[in-house]
Amino acid sequence: MTNNKEKHWLVVAFKIIWLLVDLDSDTSVPVFQVCEWHSPEQLKKLLDLELRDRGEPESEILQRCRDAIRYSVKTSHPRFFNQLYAGMEPYSMVASFIAEAVKTNLYTYEVAPVFTLMEDAVLRKMIKVIGWEEGGDGIFNPGGSLSNIYAVNLARYRYCPDFKEVGMFSAPRLVILTSQECHYSISKGAALMGIGTKNVYTVPTDERGRMIPSALEEKIKLAKSEGAVPFMVNATAGTTVLGAFDPIDEIADICEKHNLWLHVDACWGGAAIMSKKHKHLLKGIHRVDSVAWNPHKMLMASLQCSAFLVRDKTSLLQRCHSARASYLFQQDKFYDVSYDTGDKSVQCSRKPDAFKFWLMWKALGSRELEQRVDRALAMARYLAEEIKKREGFRLVLEPEFANVCFWYLPPSLRNLPESPELWKKLHTVAPVVKQRMMKTGSMMTGYQPLGEKANFFRMVVISPQVSRQDLDFVLDEIHNLGKDL
Amino acid sequence: MTNNKEKHWLVVAFKIIWLLVDLDSDTSVPVFQVCEWHSPEQLKKLLDLELRDRGEPESEILQRCRDAIRYSVKTSHPRFFNQLYAGMEPYSMVASFIAEAVKTNLYTYEVAPVFTLMEDAVLRKMIKVIGWEEGGDGIFNPGGSLSNIYAVNLARYRYCPDFKEVGMFSAPRLVILTSQECHYSISKGAALMGIGTKNVYTVPTDERGRMIPSALEEKIKLAKSEGAVPFMVNATAGTTVLGAFDPIDEIADICEKHNLWLHVDACWGGAAIMSKKHKHLLKGIHRVDSVAWNPHKMLMASLQCSAFLVRDKTSLLQRCHSARASYLFQQDKFYDVSYDTGDKSVQCSRKPDAFKFWLMWKALGSRELEQRVDRALAMARYLAEEIKKREGFRLVLEPEFANVCFWYLPPSLRNLPESPELWKKLHTVAPVVKQRMMKTGSMMTGYQPLGEKANFFRMVVISPQVSRQDLDFVLDEIHNLGKDL
Ligand SMILES: Cc1ncc(COP(=O)(O)O)c(C=O)c1O
Ligand SMILES: Cc1ncc(COP(=O)(O)O)c(C=O)c1O
Repeated sequence: MTNNKEKHWLVVAFKIIWLLVDLDSDTSVPVFQVCEWHSPEQLKKLLDLELRDRGEPESEILQRCRDAIRYSVKTSHPRFFNQLYAGMEPYSMVASFIAEAVKTNLYTYEVAPVFTLMEDAVLRKMIKVIGWEEGGDGIFNPGGSLSNIYAVNLARYRYCPDFKEVGMFSAPRLVILTSQECHYSISKGAALMGIGTKNVYTVPTDERGRMIPSALEEKIKLAKSEGAVPFMVNATAGTTVLGAFDPIDEIADICEKHNLWLHVDACWGGAAIMSKKHKHLLKGIHRVDSVAWNPHKMLMASLQCSAFLVRDKTSLLQRCHSARASYLFQQDKFYDVSYDTGDKSVQCSRKPDAFKFWLMWKALGSRELEQRVDRALAMARYLAEEIKKREGFRLVLEPEFANVCFWYLPPSLRNLPESPELWKKLHTVAPVVKQRMMKTGSMMTGYQPLGEKANFFRMVVISPQVSRQDLDFVLDEIHNLGKDL
Repeated sequence: MTNNKEKHWLVVAFKIIWLLVDLDSDTSVPVFQVCEWHSPEQLKKLLDLELRDRGEPESEILQRCRDAIRYSVKTSHPRFFNQLYAGMEPYSMVASFIAEAVKTNLYTYEVAPVFTLMEDAVLRKMIKVIGWEEGGDGIFNPGGSLSNIYAVNLARYRYCPDFKEVGMFSAPRLVILTSQECHYSISKGAALMGIGTKNVYTVPTDERGRMIPSALEEKIKLAKSEGAVPFMVNATAGTTVLGAFDPIDEIADICEKHNLWLHVDACWGGAAIMSKKHKHLLKGIHRVDSVAWNPHKMLMASLQCSAFLVRDKTSLLQRCHSARASYLFQQDKFYDVSYDTGDKSVQCSRKPDAFKFWLMWKALGSRELEQRVDRALAMARYLAEEIKKREGFRLVLEPEFANVCFWYLPPSLRNLPESPELWKKLHTVAPVVKQRMMKTGSMMTGYQPLGEKANFFRMVVISPQVSRQDLDFVLDEIHNLGKDL
């Protein structure tokens, strides 16, 4: 079936990837570093990126593979905290290799029988965990942003199915409601879908970053008084920066009253539902119309792994997205074509991402997933308590989830009075500390401003490989890098 | 950095994937079969899909991995012709494994320095090959469908940037023009974007499936006479079923005259541009505004690998899609933030798909890519000639590209006069032959109706591992499977 070249290259791939899980053994790679920083200009020189007429001999290609790994950020390193993903989940990684090697698309049962059924099994299980007793429907997408966009599309389709055919040209002005802390994909989706970013009405949040239900109701009334048509609310379960959970139950009451589609962006916070201890954060989720949940974030599935779930049982997803291409979704097939899920998607080729989650869930069981969530949140709590103890560190707010947001004040700022002056100076600290940590490669964590708040660090603990010592190191290192500022 | 569990699982993964490239050595897997057919109900039983509280021991998980491979379709088998992808490209596969293991997203240079630069290098090279002398811009997307949707969005943004903010509610009715043979993603995109499928005006094609320029001009006039606003034309370079190439040069003349955005969907046919012999098929492509080109199709890059290219040099792509999220795209970073490409996308997390193409291009050189294209087209020509020679086989049309479309007439139909009766009977032949080939697992090829045409087979030759004998086998086997019908 395959030739020796492929076998040979498989061995090569294996050896190269081995370098990544066994970095200490390769002395050419600086050990213990999260990254080896080079500016784009320097790195271009190191990589020789040009593509030429002639191919390169194997030894060169091998070196290029090594270099690709060497100069990449080690996102599995226990001191990588820069994004909402981290760490390597071995089962999921194995599944992703198999998926790559099997090389198929998830549009028809015919070409992806195994992965089609696995996607179905994972979706059903997620729906069960969410608590939609009557079941539901769903699909895996390349990213939670697309899942959020699907939600907007379904909500619009339910409001008026005709738009699918005739467009929105004579439609009333449609309005989406979401908190000011929501992920930017809601805006991107509104722009793409012809709704417009200005028709995304942002609802104020409380001091912990949660949507204020009464403010939501006011904004709905405002939109109506302007002659616009609010058609959906996006509640965020685990906001990107603060990790806040909008109060779903109260929002659901309002949506019921006004007959609005309620979507929950649980891309980040969805994992909490696996935990008996923390699922209260998503109280009311059984009542909502749709959910976006990314197992590639806190649950550590390989990138990407993003589920979109919908409570509807009348094939709204399929009706909203279908184009009934006769070359792919022939109706005279010899098997039950309801297993051809491709027409639920706006994509054509689609990766079998669900398999990456299915295999790890099978291997770990729900219990181990639960323990990981509990552990991540306990570590966040530990970090928050440490921050409170240390001089020069100040929490932005008490963490509700796995996001720990804090300022670091170098000694020179510690005795200044609270004033715009202080905050202005503080605003410049995090970028410099970040630059220094990248250049030493000792760790990576993100920073950002938020509303009126000066730049602060955001730490998120995800991987079970992170220890308390790693968290202590983070605080020590930030101090070491920034104390002279 | 990583624990022994990960090392252990890497070894496991390797052993499992080995099965796939060395199927003959595993006697549990039926050799020489493209697939081992089971109905969804049967396969569910074989796979035990349920996810439970407790995890499973390693030996079970290992068996699940083996089963996933065993019951999956062998898309790398030289007798797999069912889709517009096939075969295994070892360099690209290695790159995909590395990308999985490195586990990062392509939004900022900070977390994906290597892949950011590689994407840039590949895009530049593709732009050069296309012949945009002044350069351009681009991005890799999860699938050509999204690339086509990006084209519609950029065209709309150029027509009226205000829609991004205010939506299309008071816009004139916008119209997209495309041939009746175009890929369904244009319609899906129009629906998603609030334009509506009815505002996709389909232009008639000639007897070989190519858009008729004069008919295009008529449709533009028609739309205008209705008070609508045509804003873009989609030309297909390599249609999905027939492999037809719309005449880009003539269409470009019309677009210039009417000031319309011209997009070329070269997802399938873009590969021809690598070949001195065949690039005439895309004549005029240097004049167009944007191109979608999937190296994961004919060039065999691992799934997915889809580039969207745009000739604009005024950062239209970024302006159209940006949301300027302050938590990710901080402007006070210490490096040149123009390397943070994430805001060009409607996605947030995005896979480093370009690396899969970069590594194989580096290893093979443009010359070998060219030879592969030439070889695929020579094989298609061989198959077409064989079909002409054989009794009971009839070409739907002379192939212009790698798609060979034909009917198989079982002996019982061969002496019937041309009549609706004959075509009605013929329509039922392909589905039965397809069912039988799936059940024996001997090969896989697609069939579909097209307009008034009865169900016919579509063969596409892609992989350099396909031999003339494989093609002879295909025709023999179709006859064997269908001769009693
Ligand atoms: C709350 C929230 N929603 C959605 C997303 C988007 O998910 P993705 O990056 O998979 O598109 C993110 C990403 O960080 C997020 O934090
Ligand atoms: C002509 C054409 N355009 C676009 C696409 C869509 O590409 P993708 O499957 O990557 O979304 C296809 C897929 O077959 C195609 O044939």
